[in-house]
Amino acid sequence: MTRSYATGTTMKALVYKQVGKVELQERPIPKIQSPSDAVVKLTKTTICGTDLHIRKGDVATCTPGRVLGHEGVGIIDEIGDSVTKFKKGDPVLISCISSCATCEYCRRGMSSHCTTGGWVLGNEIDGTQAEYVRIPHADCSLYAIPEGVDQSALVTLSDIFPTGLECGVINGKVQPGSTVAIIGAGPVGLAALITAQFYSPATIIMLDTDPGRLKVATSLGAHATINSGTGDRDSVIKSVLDLTDGKGCDTIIEAVGIPATFELGQKLLAPGGVLANVGVHGTKVDLFLDELWAKNISITTRLVDAVTTPMLLKMVEAKKLKPDQLITHKFKFDEIEKAYETFGAAQQHGALKVLVEL
Amino acid sequence: MTRSYATGTTMKALVYKQVGKVELQERPIPKIQSPSDAVVKLTKTTICGTDLHIRKGDVATCTPGRVLGHEGVGIIDEIGDSVTKFKKGDPVLISCISSCATCEYCRRGMSSHCTTGGWVLGNEIDGTQAEYVRIPHADCSLYAIPEGVDQSALVTLSDIFPTGLECGVINGKVQPGSTVAIIGAGPVGLAALITAQFYSPATIIMLDTDPGRLKVATSLGAHATINSGTGDRDSVIKSVLDLTDGKGCDTIIEAVGIPATFELGQKLLAPGGVLANVGVHGTKVDLFLDELWAKNISITTRLVDAVTTPMLLKMVEAKKLKPDQLITHKFKFDEIEKAYETFGAAQQHGALKVLVEL
Amino acid sequence: MTRSYATGTTMKALVYKQVGKVELQERPIPKIQSPSDAVVKLTKTTICGTDLHIRKGDVATCTPGRVLGHEGVGIIDEIGDSVTKFKKGDPVLISCISSCATCEYCRRGMSSHCTTGGWVLGNEIDGTQAEYVRIPHADCSLYAIPEGVDQSALVTLSDIFPTGLECGVINGKVQPGSTVAIIGAGPVGLAALITAQFYSPATIIMLDTDPGRLKVATSLGAHATINSGTGDRDSVIKSVLDLTDGKGCDTIIEAVGIPATFELGQKLLAPGGVLANVGVHGTKVDLFLDELWAKNISITTRLVDAVTTPMLLKMVEAKKLKPDQLITHKFKFDEIEKAYETFGAAQQHGALKVLVEL
Amino acid sequence: MTRSYATGTTMKALVYKQVGKVELQERPIPKIQSPSDAVVKLTKTTICGTDLHIRKGDVATCTPGRVLGHEGVGIIDEIGDSVTKFKKGDPVLISCISSCATCEYCRRGMSSHCTTGGWVLGNEIDGTQAEYVRIPHADCSLYAIPEGVDQSALVTLSDIFPTGLECGVINGKVQPGSTVAIIGAGPVGLAALITAQFYSPATIIMLDTDPGRLKVATSLGAHATINSGTGDRDSVIKSVLDLTDGKGCDTIIEAVGIPATFELGQKLLAPGGVLANVGVHGTKVDLFLDELWAKNISITTRLVDAVTTPMLLKMVEAKKLKPDQLITHKFKFDEIEKAYETFGAAQQHGALKVLVEL
Repeated sequence: MTRSYATGTTMKALVYKQVGKVELQERPIPKIQSPSDAVVKLTKTTICGTDLHIRKGDVATCTPGRVLGHEGVGIIDEIGDSVTKFKKGDPVLISCISSCATCEYCRRGMSSHCTTGGWVLGNEIDGTQAEYVRIPHADCSLYAIPEGVDQSALVTLSDIFPTGLECGVINGKVQPGSTVAIIGAGPVGLAALITAQFYSPATIIMLDTDPGRLKVATSLGAHATINSGTGDRDSVIKSVLDLTDGKGCDTIIEAVGIPATFELGQKLLAPGGVLANVGVHGTKVDLFLDELWAKNISITTRLVDAVTTPMLLKMVEAKKLKPDQLITHKFKFDEIEKAYETFGAAQQHGALKVLVEL
Repeated sequence: MTRSYATGTTMKALVYKQVGKVELQERPIPKIQSPSDAVVKLTKTTICGTDLHIRKGDVATCTPGRVLGHEGVGIIDEIGDSVTKFKKGDPVLISCISSCATCEYCRRGMSSHCTTGGWVLGNEIDGTQAEYVRIPHADCSLYAIPEGVDQSALVTLSDIFPTGLECGVINGKVQPGSTVAIIGAGPVGLAALITAQFYSPATIIMLDTDPGRLKVATSLGAHATINSGTGDRDSVIKSVLDLTDGKGCDTIIEAVGIPATFELGQKLLAPGGVLANVGVHGTKVDLFLDELWAKNISITTRLVDAVTTPMLLKMVEAKKLKPDQLITHKFKFDEIEKAYETFGAAQQHGALKVLVEL
Repeated sequence: MTRSYATGTTMKALVYKQVGKVELQERPIPKIQSPSDAVVKLTKTTICGTDLHIRKGDVATCTPGRVLGHEGVGIIDEIGDSVTKFKKGDPVLISCISSCATCEYCRRGMSSHCTTGGWVLGNEIDGTQAEYVRIPHADCSLYAIPEGVDQSALVTLSDIFPTGLECGVINGKVQPGSTVAIIGAGPVGLAALITAQFYSPATIIMLDTDPGRLKVATSLGAHATINSGTGDRDSVIKSVLDLTDGKGCDTIIEAVGIPATFELGQKLLAPGGVLANVGVHGTKVDLFLDELWAKNISITTRLVDAVTTPMLLKMVEAKKLKPDQLITHKFKFDEIEKAYETFGAAQQHGALKVLVEL
Repeated sequence: MTRSYATGTTMKALVYKQVGKVELQERPIPKIQSPSDAVVKLTKTTICGTDLHIRKGDVATCTPGRVLGHEGVGIIDEIGDSVTKFKKGDPVLISCISSCATCEYCRRGMSSHCTTGGWVLGNEIDGTQAEYVRIPHADCSLYAIPEGVDQSALVTLSDIFPTGLECGVINGKVQPGSTVAIIGAGPVGLAALITAQFYSPATIIMLDTDPGRLKVATSLGAHATINSGTGDRDSVIKSVLDLTDGKGCDTIIEAVGIPATFELGQKLLAPGGVLANVGVHGTKVDLFLDELWAKNISITTRLVDAVTTPMLLKMVEAKKLKPDQLITHKFKFDEIEKAYETFGAAQQHGALKVLVEL
């Protein structure tokens, strides 16, 4: 358990200081607390939309003083006695979900509800926007990086690719020949767009209010795009119906998280369709059950379980998934506050994911 | 194509006369209109909650002058040239859903959305509360009654058993060892209670405001009952949580059809659970997406497709389903207006299904 | 019901004359026999490996005098009174499977076992290698050709694409990131190769003894090819294990139909894998249950049900499936005997599917 | 980590001495070797058919000197530092499968193939026919016994109930209204019979050569029994066809493990059916692929993964499964050699499971 990092006991870390403010601080380097922990020295991290929500004070479980971040790639620096799958020096991908693997929920594939894990990193415990991070339940919360895979962009597999795939594509039952509408062309919506193509739908329609993001969507495989900010809801609905023989879509993926988009999604459903929610919602919404009760539809919700991470790594290894596709900006770790500013004004900067390098 | 009924060309039929009024009238006996039709001479029929909705004027597709009824058992009286599965004289069960079997929706098991069928009987075409009824798409809308099966109570297989099973139990993914709450102990809720037991859940909790119906639920296998009319919503929620180790239920079956019960259902969901809607809803409802977005739940809707009718008939034949369990009253066809009164004041009369005999 | 073909009552048809011999003959034009029939005037047909088996006398249900062929594209020429989905003049794809849509098996998606249909064309009733063919159960055995789709190559959707997809890919549970081995690079094996890619497996390994066909496989997306005719079985097994981290494949598709290849398939299975049989077998084989009983594997068999035809047509319409990829030769209908010779010596001619144009 | 057992360092254990011989010996009490281990003081154990195979020398992985047994109930006596779900003194059920929960196979629900576990107890490491046993991967290989559940008979949940349920019933896709044949009325076949009823099949036919066991089968819910030892195979096949309208069965569960019964199973399959193998096979068998290639069937194999143990415990707690139903004999641990004799001549003694009490 000797540490490679010999020069001190502190590190730099990005801390949620108070509502509206994050700050780079000097913090103690984390240590193993349980035999199933690992400490990872980060080489790459990134910023999630959720981090912006925390900064705004929207996430009650995350209190001031917390080191932020739940995405990252690094090198095992210290390892607990009961961890069997990794050793010091191994390059690893950090999952946004910590999983004990053995509780009722982990056994059912619902690691997001792990009774001693789930989404804790950068939320209930210190996270990955730092030089080091302690990872609980390391055996099931870290992933070995396959040989030959470029590590630089794998941070997109910590959260956004499994989120788009699990909450959007798999819950939404995308299938060969089916029709899909994705509402919201942010990083997660685009991750859904990319991974939806694993299942060869006939049509993917992307909706967003930002022409720049719609252009990106087209370059990433969207068959049609609709600017949902021009014209009223009825005209948007009509556009989708026109593209689908008047039937609506088999799968709707809601990747925004506000009532207007979730309610729009309901209007776009074909009989037998699925509305797969990905967005983080802060309020109740209207459910048009009078229109939907006889329409044989499903609505699903999910916090990413990250159970598809092994499959996504295989897809990267097989060169069928390019993890760097969504990275638009790169920053040094010293510049992470600036990275927050850029990502916080994503539309203005044309930002999707910002890579932060240590 | 000779008809057995030689004495005339008219029959008695129960007609939706105007909002608030149904009436027994003399009507022409229906004839074959398409080679895939059959005409069935009814021996038994019954009244559905939907018929009461029609009488109230709630169902826009059903206009005055319509012969009501979508449930029934009878004898094939006349048969179209292309019908291959039945011949004159065969005893048959009439499905509430008419299915062409070949359109896009029928092929996907969604006969409720059949492009030339679905729920048309007693709605868009004349129905089964009559001496004779014309059944379109006879090959896939009628079922041979197996030898040795008592026909008298099979009217419960026309609609309520497949509805409870498909919309509630199957959509709700009831499984061995799981926990189930059923909101609404009317005929369909009780049909869900009975058919849920095909899959051996550990616990079924029945909720209703009528102590009489809850008593019936206990006799039909409910492990616990809650009178949701006494006390406020929070106390009802607490009762369910107390019965399920604080987790809520894996399956919630909503069999009422009003906002209060659908909203209650959301509050009873365990992580990973399914809220299967059975109720007919006339208005939008609140969806508590702020509470549910991260809970990995599903909400499903379905108009019965009646695709489980062959299985239900096998269960009757194997004596594992008693179709007469829900029949509380019997009437002669001449008394059908009185049957409507009894069924319309079901709670007062302790009525579940009323059997009308011809 | 007027016929467009005014000049006579006979047509040319390819008839199975006796073991070893097929012959172009003059035959009566077929007529509607049941109200659910259609008569189709063929524009394209093709020859299947099964037709060669019939010619050899291997198919007991097909007796001399039969017009062969179960694949084709044409125009509706006459239509029965109860057919609702088509009218005279409609361009249609003919399925190799005739389906009543309403029997027990059709309802369960097993149209191949339809009690009054299944594979009857060119087998138990006259088939499609003729100027006209009568199609029973027309509503569920013919498919409208979408506007804008080039009809010329759609004969590959009559049989080989649904066969490769249903018996091989779907039964074999091909999934994103999984590993697949396909034994046999004939037309059906290649159809499996093409449709397997709908589900984005990480690796598809193609095995055959013909270097020419393996070259085609590579051009159609195989990630690796193995010439199973060079070296013994152990070396073939070793090659597959080397390509799959020593694990074997998640899916094995057997598309040959002899004991040696089926037995090889068992040796290539990873724990948890599926061996999906596509081949037509004429004898029993060895099952290595001593090696497999604890390996959590499945073996599946299937006669194509053609239930994926609507999906395949959508994929063609969306330009995600090119139906002409497997067509190597074209013949006029007058030359069909020559087409049999070419297809019967497929390897020598580099033949996959031969298109016969009327 | 203090031990409750203060009086010594050795214990009694049943050891596989040499081919044909087991012996009660004095052995060192096992100690924690890894932080994820637990040591359990046994209160109940039992003998499995596999133990008899080991005694005969049939199981190559189990060598002389091994303490036998992979079933048991006991009290946690010592606990490793990283075990979080149990503490000293907890009553636990021991699973026959040790699962790390985090390897590729455990994540896929295939714990039987755990790369550092699987079936190791009483096979590759010392087992449960002893006063103490060390359990690796304790968090996922032990189960807390719910309050109020009688522990005495829970040894049947260590192996035979999950085996019958997973390998037979779940792999066999038993469903409401379906038809099932179980070949072999030994303990595992009977466990399949009992758990098949969780899914309400219409008919379960039990086949065995022992009239005594068939009588037990009838008392446990079999709808029909066939003595497969009287008459030839054709008459047995005919009997099953007669009971299933000539169709054969939707599910065949093979619970014997010899070629004759596996080959019989193939002959009993209905189109679309599943032959679920449970038996341990020591040789290859004939697969009648010429009869089955077009029959749309599946054959499955599985080593029990014990992933249904939580569900089975819920069923016991809900009083829907009586774990003592299969226990016919009880012995003190000192008499375990005699218990082997009784169980080894099971038919003569009418023995199913023998409970060994410590």
